[in-house]
Amino acid sequence: MTQDVQMVDVILAKRRGEAHDRATLEAFIGGFVRGEVPDYQVAAWLMAVVWRGMTVRETADLTEVMADSGERLDLDEFAHPVDKHSTGGVGDKTTLVLAPLLASLGASVAKMSGRGLGHTGGTIDKLEAIPGFRAELDQEAFFRQVREIGVAVTGQTKALAPADGLLYALRDVTGTVASLPLIASSVMSKKLAGGARTIVLDVKVGHGTFMRTPDEARALAASMLAIGRHAGRTVRAVLSNMDEPLGTAVGHALEVREAIAALRGGGPPDLRELVVTLAAEVLEAAGLVTARDEVEAALDDGRALARFERWVAAQGGDVTRLDDLEVTADTADWCADASGFLTSLDARRVGAAVSQLGGGRRHKGDVLDLGVGAVMRAKVGDAVRAGDPLITLHHRSGAGLDAALSTLEGAAAFSDRSERRPLILEVVR
Amino acid sequence: MTQDVQMVDVILAKRRGEAHDRATLEAFIGGFVRGEVPDYQVAAWLMAVVWRGMTVRETADLTEVMADSGERLDLDEFAHPVDKHSTGGVGDKTTLVLAPLLASLGASVAKMSGRGLGHTGGTIDKLEAIPGFRAELDQEAFFRQVREIGVAVTGQTKALAPADGLLYALRDVTGTVASLPLIASSVMSKKLAGGARTIVLDVKVGHGTFMRTPDEARALAASMLAIGRHAGRTVRAVLSNMDEPLGTAVGHALEVREAIAALRGGGPPDLRELVVTLAAEVLEAAGLVTARDEVEAALDDGRALARFERWVAAQGGDVTRLDDLEVTADTADWCADASGFLTSLDARRVGAAVSQLGGGRRHKGDVLDLGVGAVMRAKVGDAVRAGDPLITLHHRSGAGLDAALSTLEGAAAFSDRSERRPLILEVVR
Repeated sequence: MTQDVQMVDVILAKRRGEAHDRATLEAFIGGFVRGEVPDYQVAAWLMAVVWRGMTVRETADLTEVMADSGERLDLDEFAHPVDKHSTGGVGDKTTLVLAPLLASLGASVAKMSGRGLGHTGGTIDKLEAIPGFRAELDQEAFFRQVREIGVAVTGQTKALAPADGLLYALRDVTGTVASLPLIASSVMSKKLAGGARTIVLDVKVGHGTFMRTPDEARALAASMLAIGRHAGRTVRAVLSNMDEPLGTAVGHALEVREAIAALRGGGPPDLRELVVTLAAEVLEAAGLVTARDEVEAALDDGRALARFERWVAAQGGDVTRLDDLEVTADTADWCADASGFLTSLDARRVGAAVSQLGGGRRHKGDVLDLGVGAVMRAKVGDAVRAGDPLITLHHRSGAGLDAALSTLEGAAAFSDRSERRPLILEVVR
Repeated sequence: MTQDVQMVDVILAKRRGEAHDRATLEAFIGGFVRGEVPDYQVAAWLMAVVWRGMTVRETADLTEVMADSGERLDLDEFAHPVDKHSTGGVGDKTTLVLAPLLASLGASVAKMSGRGLGHTGGTIDKLEAIPGFRAELDQEAFFRQVREIGVAVTGQTKALAPADGLLYALRDVTGTVASLPLIASSVMSKKLAGGARTIVLDVKVGHGTFMRTPDEARALAASMLAIGRHAGRTVRAVLSNMDEPLGTAVGHALEVREAIAALRGGGPPDLRELVVTLAAEVLEAAGLVTARDEVEAALDDGRALARFERWVAAQGGDVTRLDDLEVTADTADWCADASGFLTSLDARRVGAAVSQLGGGRRHKGDVLDLGVGAVMRAKVGDAVRAGDPLITLHHRSGAGLDAALSTLEGAAAFSDRSERRPLILEVVR
């Protein structure tokens, strides 16, 4: 009750629009994580934060408090520990390409990654489409692998920023997800706890993402850069368009295939462009490259692919079967109902459709079908005639197919002239 | 989970500043009362209501939904069922005088009243200072008494507007108490469920009340009148000053004594003025009197007192002992530390001090000491010299006395000229 009363004062202060000091945030968020501050008080406070916002300093303090809520990964033994975060994307297999690419150019990528939930897939889930791949490494093996190969990705063995998971779950059911300081602190708390000194953020812009306009995305990027500065990290942000899924493949095995194509110097141009931009930014910030060419060369001359194969092999994956990943043979086309130039393809719906085919989790712990997915047969700007296939769905014996097809209804938009927007909108340094 | 998701949409709509329709409020508040909508969702919604406000129609709908959350008292058999509500006051014994006064002039007062909590005393608790008084009446006895005597006050036998109690408890710990639509709907939901057709509201203004300025109080009054109009009730509001406790007595037996003095045509002038104003407004609205004189006459010629005695006797009280109520003999004076004219005396602190002497509940169910209390020795506008007693505390063998004296520290303010503000600021019709 005493606690309740003190915490009411915190809520009231935010209600009045005051900024909290770090000690207050520690008491409030720390109390919540320890189960001492009840969720209804945090819920009211979250809505007051949505209403009143947070100062730059306050957001940075909140982020540190969240990062301190669990263990922090200590990467100080590495010369160039780097990290990348994407604010959620469908068909986003960039980590699979970027991580070995960065390692091949001298950076250390020690990544603890979550599993996918809802309409976006998790990197670890995708890697498990490779026969034998072990996502779970103990801490010693994890660090040894980073030392030897420069790259390791594992499930979360340490509880990085547990406050974020608890807060996010509460935000999700209280209408307080969309909030600049809450999104920025959520992302950055995990990045700070993850230990990298140089971080590149891929901020998606467009329908179906948190940031619907470039202005919103720019503000989020600025906030995350400021948090990084406060914490002594170097952060850059790349604003990228999400008018359609990245590349042409959505679904676990399909995305690994596409990532391998990119690592061989090919693959869809938008995937390559995003990977090269993110890599060039973070490596330049880390002092490892000076020009974009150096990054492209590592993709084209096989260095990145070789690093990928060492990485996969080190985690038990069978690299002789990379061209042989199981994708379902059952396919069905979803076709255009109008003629014209494709102007957008709702990535969220495509992700949801693949999820309905068995490729996504509704609940934690659901078993995934890694062989189902969707292949885009047209990209934004392409000319399409009514009846042309827009997406080929890979399903397993028709499971979830009707639902997936009905989810896709209305996902495509057309116009009478071709408009291609740039993938990269802006880099914020 | 499905419920959670739908309820998130309600929160998001309020977050965007949209008005809910009645069906939505029924689902949300009804779900909360049934335990289906979790408190954290309601907490976030409450803060969004504080932020975005509510339309007049929406506030009226919320009030009806809350009034419908339990049983409603059916007073249709009575020709002139009236009710009064005060927005919380220290030393507010007006109901003890007003109820028999209204009955003596032809109105029916069928009041279900709660017990006191915190720094304000409950009417029922005060009545129990009369030996033999029974606060708990069954429903039949309650209605029979209203039929025969025109007045009955009982503890809440029916659960009137249980949604209000649940919401209030949550508001109390989430910093969402102060909100015009939430206060207005809270007050009016109980009044609507209470069944009276004509209602007068005593809206306190000043430090230590919810409404710090006349403008705020006026807005609250307007909102409550509009709710009444929507519900087909006639409502008037009296805005009264709370720069000091009403009358000179705070504490159960002391307040009953003072009420009896007023019923005998005497007592402190401010108590009499407030009672007469409230009575004249509600009786005129009910069509029972046309002039204030008629009300004053009923106080001065003994009709109100006679009705009080019949009422008390009907509920088992010993009317031969009205001049003999037990007040503790142990007294201690709290004295002025400066000379000048008293400009304010913090009623909240006086109430808290009496509570510490044993006259208030910290928790539901605490047993009260009805004999302790405080007597004001000076009223606002009076000239005081340093060392003069300002308040005489009646304590029991020193219990809680040090705490009470320290609570009073700084409760009085002085200036070098006498300022008497009017007790009644405004009547809103």
